[in-house]
Amino acid sequence: MSLDGCLTHHDRPGTGFGSPADHAFFRAALPTFDCSIAGRLTYQAGRESILRARESSRLQMVLTSTPERFEADSMAEHLEFRNADTSSVVAELRQRGRSRCALLGGARLYTEACAQDLLDELWVTIEPVAFGEGTRMFEGRTDFRFEVMGAERLSSETWLLKYRRAGRRGVLA
Amino acid sequence: MSLDGCLTHHDRPGTGFGSPADHAFFRAALPTFDCSIAGRLTYQAGRESILRARESSRLQMVLTSTPERFEADSMAEHLEFRNADTSSVVAELRQRGRSRCALLGGARLYTEACAQDLLDELWVTIEPVAFGEGTRMFEGRTDFRFEVMGAERLSSETWLLKYRRAGRRGVLA
Repeated sequence: MSLDGCLTHHDRPGTGFGSPADHAFFRAALPTFDCSIAGRLTYQAGRESILRARESSRLQMVLTSTPERFEADSMAEHLEFRNADTSSVVAELRQRGRSRCALLGGARLYTEACAQDLLDELWVTIEPVAFGEGTRMFEGRTDFRFEVMGAERLSSETWLLKYRRAGRRGVLA
Repeated sequence: MSLDGCLTHHDRPGTGFGSPADHAFFRAALPTFDCSIAGRLTYQAGRESILRARESSRLQMVLTSTPERFEADSMAEHLEFRNADTSSVVAELRQRGRSRCALLGGARLYTEACAQDLLDELWVTIEPVAFGEGTRMFEGRTDFRFEVMGAERLSSETWLLKYRRAGRRGVLA
């Protein structure tokens, strides 16, 4: 995120503006999860590198109203597409024995996951830039409250702030 | 600021959502400045308490296109109104011997001050809430770059992040 709350640089999709430290943190954190959920746009923004690493990856779920469009991309247990809401997919993941799920965006997924009380923790990396305009973290008016878990300086320029939803216990575990 | 970059709770003006720690930090920091600049809306949101403390305060400048409307509020050397842009007011403050100016908002003032290279440091307190909608820090598309100065945990819930403009030296001093 830019320090003024933008997840993208103006209308450019993806996280290209992120610092090397942010990208390194993301790459190191992902393997600590045994599954993930992303929206279709987020999937498409990272599609090339996701397909390259598909075979060795955790179970990645992509939410889309047209899963049939992505049949060629899918690979059971690694990359699957669902026309379903977040809570159904979380229920399926729980049933399939997964215990730690990364929600990778975008804003609609974050908003739905918080509104349906499916999100345990929120990790925000803050880059020292201000974009004024860009995709925001949540859609519409929200009133979500969190608790501070801690902060970590990832590099000379990048902060990682970790929050948990106020009063929450884990969803999957 | 909420953790998703809102300076106000939805469309409610002012900083009422701020934590006690944030308000205490603000009250303690202000006396370390010998002058300040605010936009008219920001002034009006805090007008009552500003007028109450007017006599003992630093020189407060308010930018407005209609300074004559605020003649009854003004008090020389304490609360003055200017129909002028930020750089002219900063130049006047420098000429009047002031060396440390707080820019108190809103978004237009922050944007203009950054665009005109008048801002040395940016202090952001982050509350553990997400509002989705609210006043943002900057107006329009910006590309401002900062350097991390440091961070401080003001309370169990509130972080203070301090930045300086990349490659800047002081404007007034």
